[in-house]
Amino acid sequence: MEVLRTVAEARARSEAWRCEGLSVGLVPTMGALHEGHLSLVRRAREECDRTVVSIFVNPLQFAPGEDSRARVAGLDEVLEGECRPGHFEGVATVVLKLFNAVRPRRAYFGQKDGQQARLVGRLARDLDTGVEVVVCATVREPDGLALSSRNAYLRGPERAAARCLVRALTAANARWLGGERDAAALARAMREVLAAEPLASVDYAAVVDEQSFRGPGRLAVVAVRIGRTRLIDNHPLGEPLPV
Amino acid sequence: MEVLRTVAEARARSEAWRCEGLSVGLVPTMGALHEGHLSLVRRAREECDRTVVSIFVNPLQFAPGEDSRARVAGLDEVLEGECRPGHFEGVATVVLKLFNAVRPRRAYFGQKDGQQARLVGRLARDLDTGVEVVVCATVREPDGLALSSRNAYLRGPERAAARCLVRALTAANARWLGGERDAAALARAMREVLAAEPLASVDYAAVVDEQSFRGPGRLAVVAVRIGRTRLIDNHPLGEPLPV
Repeated sequence: MEVLRTVAEARARSEAWRCEGLSVGLVPTMGALHEGHLSLVRRAREECDRTVVSIFVNPLQFAPGEDSRARVAGLDEVLEGECRPGHFEGVATVVLKLFNAVRPRRAYFGQKDGQQARLVGRLARDLDTGVEVVVCATVREPDGLALSSRNAYLRGPERAAARCLVRALTAANARWLGGERDAAALARAMREVLAAEPLASVDYAAVVDEQSFRGPGRLAVVAVRIGRTRLIDNHPLGEPLPV
Repeated sequence: MEVLRTVAEARARSEAWRCEGLSVGLVPTMGALHEGHLSLVRRAREECDRTVVSIFVNPLQFAPGEDSRARVAGLDEVLEGECRPGHFEGVATVVLKLFNAVRPRRAYFGQKDGQQARLVGRLARDLDTGVEVVVCATVREPDGLALSSRNAYLRGPERAAARCLVRALTAANARWLGGERDAAALARAMREVLAAEPLASVDYAAVVDEQSFRGPGRLAVVAVRIGRTRLIDNHPLGEPLPV
């Protein structure tokens, strides 16, 4: 393993690899690495000759004096985009900077942050980056909780309460497998589960299209605050939820 | 000369050149080539091993279904940005697509479109494109009119009337060389010249900072409609205006 500390180093190293005919995979992270990130790294190592893992944490997203931004109209307006104004513009811009520095053949994102993965995929295509965005299945704890760096913030009974997200997805999945196709009924099933958890405060629970993240569709999405920790999860209805 | 018709071809050819250790220069154009474009091509050929001239004309700027955009905050709000809402977002996005396809070492823009050149330079830096933006001096007709594809639209007496832009810049330059430093007085000198031309309708005439395109500064900028043709020009005050 080699540590690259500057954009210039990353650019030079990646270019040298490409010129040797080696394909480069990128796994963008914000640190706090967990098994979910490692699943992305394993997939990248399977599919690419060289894998770059970036660690970039900047609470302000941008240094002073940097005014350029990228946005992905439509996808950045709903659900996560609505709950976190400016969030996806920051994501799109940082991802573009990473793509420009590393110029990978493929970049790996987790299905847990499904809307982000879709948005980055569209950005990569629209701006002719030449990067293929690969979305990898969510990795879960044995009790079903989706892995997230934020899980570390859960205190005492909050950890058990956080299971309500996957329980809600499971309830919607059971209805779907039972033949229910009405998005409102499926969302109601999720909200009933979430309402039964006193530590949970729901941001959204919906069934949307996997491309547009607007309804109707077959992707169940949920965002919940457990105490001060905001968690998200999603599941393509009809597929097994291994809990 | 070789004609590349797809993004994939441009990407592959440019990558092959880079891997041979050859530097690539890019001259983005919208066609309607004139001597100003050729001055950019000559400069690129002097400084780079290979030169790519792109011709991309799309009145809609984007194909349907492409939602990703880039913008450069601040610079896209004043003068040209104010007169042409959305224009610079379109420019920034198309330039980013060209940069991603060709991945040049340097890209060449004309000082005539000074605000665009400055905006692209900031975009290139902020997004870690690795592209050096080179700004080349404005090429002028013998009577001082800045070369522009739009000059072809000037009909009959409009061609002579269009000289009012460079006459206005010359008037501001004369005041500056005479010691005048008050931006309002310099702008007034320009407006007096423009007001004397009956075919001219002024969008703006100002003296601004070369980086921010806000006042005060030493860059005289002017935008004027001659009949249905909108023309722009600018001059760094204190430097000779070869008319």
